[in-house]
Amino acid sequence: MTNNRVKVEIITIGDEILIGQIVDTNSAWMATELNRFGFELAQITSVHDDANHIVESLQLALKRADVVLFTGGIGPTNDDITKQTLTKFFNTKLVFDESVLKNIEHLFSTRPNFVINELTKAQAMVPENCIVIQNLVGTAPVTWFEKDGKIIVSMPGVPYEMKNIMTTEIIPRLQNRFETPELIHRTVQVYGYGESALALKIADWENELPEFISLAYLPSSGIVKLRLSGLLEDKLTLEFSVNQQIDKLSQILGSSIFAYEDIPIEQLVGKLLKLKGLKVATAESCTGGNIAHKFTLIPGSSEFFAGSVVAYSNEIKTNVLHVSEEDLEKYGAVSQAVVEQMAIGARKLLKSDIAVATSGIAGPTGGTSEKPVGTVWISVCLEGVVTSREFQFGALREQNILRATQAALLMVKELI
Amino acid sequence: MTNNRVKVEIITIGDEILIGQIVDTNSAWMATELNRFGFELAQITSVHDDANHIVESLQLALKRADVVLFTGGIGPTNDDITKQTLTKFFNTKLVFDESVLKNIEHLFSTRPNFVINELTKAQAMVPENCIVIQNLVGTAPVTWFEKDGKIIVSMPGVPYEMKNIMTTEIIPRLQNRFETPELIHRTVQVYGYGESALALKIADWENELPEFISLAYLPSSGIVKLRLSGLLEDKLTLEFSVNQQIDKLSQILGSSIFAYEDIPIEQLVGKLLKLKGLKVATAESCTGGNIAHKFTLIPGSSEFFAGSVVAYSNEIKTNVLHVSEEDLEKYGAVSQAVVEQMAIGARKLLKSDIAVATSGIAGPTGGTSEKPVGTVWISVCLEGVVTSREFQFGALREQNILRATQAALLMVKELI
Repeated sequence: MTNNRVKVEIITIGDEILIGQIVDTNSAWMATELNRFGFELAQITSVHDDANHIVESLQLALKRADVVLFTGGIGPTNDDITKQTLTKFFNTKLVFDESVLKNIEHLFSTRPNFVINELTKAQAMVPENCIVIQNLVGTAPVTWFEKDGKIIVSMPGVPYEMKNIMTTEIIPRLQNRFETPELIHRTVQVYGYGESALALKIADWENELPEFISLAYLPSSGIVKLRLSGLLEDKLTLEFSVNQQIDKLSQILGSSIFAYEDIPIEQLVGKLLKLKGLKVATAESCTGGNIAHKFTLIPGSSEFFAGSVVAYSNEIKTNVLHVSEEDLEKYGAVSQAVVEQMAIGARKLLKSDIAVATSGIAGPTGGTSEKPVGTVWISVCLEGVVTSREFQFGALREQNILRATQAALLMVKELI
Repeated sequence: MTNNRVKVEIITIGDEILIGQIVDTNSAWMATELNRFGFELAQITSVHDDANHIVESLQLALKRADVVLFTGGIGPTNDDITKQTLTKFFNTKLVFDESVLKNIEHLFSTRPNFVINELTKAQAMVPENCIVIQNLVGTAPVTWFEKDGKIIVSMPGVPYEMKNIMTTEIIPRLQNRFETPELIHRTVQVYGYGESALALKIADWENELPEFISLAYLPSSGIVKLRLSGLLEDKLTLEFSVNQQIDKLSQILGSSIFAYEDIPIEQLVGKLLKLKGLKVATAESCTGGNIAHKFTLIPGSSEFFAGSVVAYSNEIKTNVLHVSEEDLEKYGAVSQAVVEQMAIGARKLLKSDIAVATSGIAGPTGGTSEKPVGTVWISVCLEGVVTSREFQFGALREQNILRATQAALLMVKELI
């Protein structure tokens, strides 16, 4: 599927990624954008601020790719050496560029506390053989080189500067320069299957996929995302064909598919709740507030999320959520009886339409032979309806919290 | 400081990083761990599930590095080809390994809904020339190869599987195998300064650091971690010297240093609460359960954490936490009066020693000229003592939630 596409490589420069100081979120963003516009990202390479290593990676990348995008290493301080390294690589010299200084002056005119010092001024020195692209939101200019029909671009590593430049300048220029095919990615999210059980279930379908559609399995905390990627000159045929394959998949997997788009389950549930004008509340023991946290990360969540009681102690279960003390003693906190009363209690107390409750043994301690670590009861109630289910997750605390959160959200989705 | 250190490279395999579907957080985590134990991470390379490309990156990495760590591409499905590729590269064949199947059987024995199918069983086929390391939390075994004095390891890309294996197996084995220099990392956590303001404040101290101690600034959601790394043959001198520098730093920064170790603030607070025999509760509006979630991620948190009310709606603030309706109307939900009553109400309702409450405008909407997005009130109460503070964070919702959580935890720490 990767034939004929324009190949791009990213080289990130800077110690901060290689000592683990920062997570490289730039590359993921760039990858999404490049793919959206039909380019193939062939490799991402992260290297230190080291001239030899930078040159070596560039030489190797130029053998494989049509376009090499550098990020980082062009700040005003001594440790940044990308500009000098590229100047040497292209056998050219640094020259003063008036337009860069003007851009910096304009930029600083809106920042009264900033003065242009020598280090800032030095940003206007650029390699003589490059095309300079102004960075409207930062002092380091973008430099665009061409060599043997290939393109090399050096841009800042500061995320919002890089994003602005990619969107307004680099992608449009690359589109002008190269012909790019239509590329479609569609994701289907599946619950209730392990990765290999799912692969067996859909093996026939997978084997009969047309050549121009490829499939990837992306498992995460109890769900598997299936991603179909299609590449074809004729866009209409491609869309028709991808939709046809998804219809077939849907017939095989039925309600195990809980989403036909690549969004987090809490956003899907939030959308549905808003659509139906319902509000949800949570009563969380083992998930400890994580379901509430997931909901409230969504902008505008007050439209569908009422609130939560994190009932970590038994006392809160009885005093606040009115779980029967007798049942708590008789069945234990991790039981159907208790988790149902938690859901009913939360719905009443927090005046919501729906409530979901969790109670389980997240670990690492607290397990028994009857209820080992990873045992979780989840209950959802709507007016007059209460459904509950018992789960066995794994041995790791964080994983149990994540999977119980995921399962609780799916149970809410099923009910509405 | 990087001379003579054992060089490691990471190669991540999988389309998901290169099409931007996931952010590569694994590499940052691995980078931190490798550096902590004295290894130098020389390069990170991300490539597709493509045999030629995988082999090419491995060959190049082996020229530069002593150790190559692969993550990803070893799931049971067709798109994963790392194992086959390495088998071919090492000119060997796949053989059945009984111990892997046993491990999978043990793993599945706690998951009654999972059955071992052919694809899962195929995970027990491993290259004949490798050392197999069991993956205790997943089905794909880790394979460890040696070639010309160099080490190549292939492990899963699932973050918790990879982390577990790195910590319990790979790092210890690499330490056994190579001599790593004595490397000391000490972290001091600072609150109340931006990165550049902090750099100016401690500039003199930083300039006078001995050559064998280097400094890194690690800013994250309102705090800055300062990491001192020392490398010296004589361990005693090194330790003495690092301690001396931290003493000096402590004289400059005083109480702005809230921790002398690199642990999350919630763990620090948890430790202190346990030590003093106190229990905490939370009443969360804008943080939406995230403080409770942070506490309950800690094993044994029931010893110091009582529970929480996520009072997202005004109705819950008044009905459940007994905030005065009058004050809510008069001052608004994001106010000192309301957040203090939330804290007092939660402490009473949840019968805790301490309660912390948050109320703010996380954004992106809901801001006014008087109370713009990012305005957050936080209150902490202990018996007879209530303290409150107003914060102005930024424009981004997720960032505001994280920073408010961080600030709330710091206020609890100050009070106890």
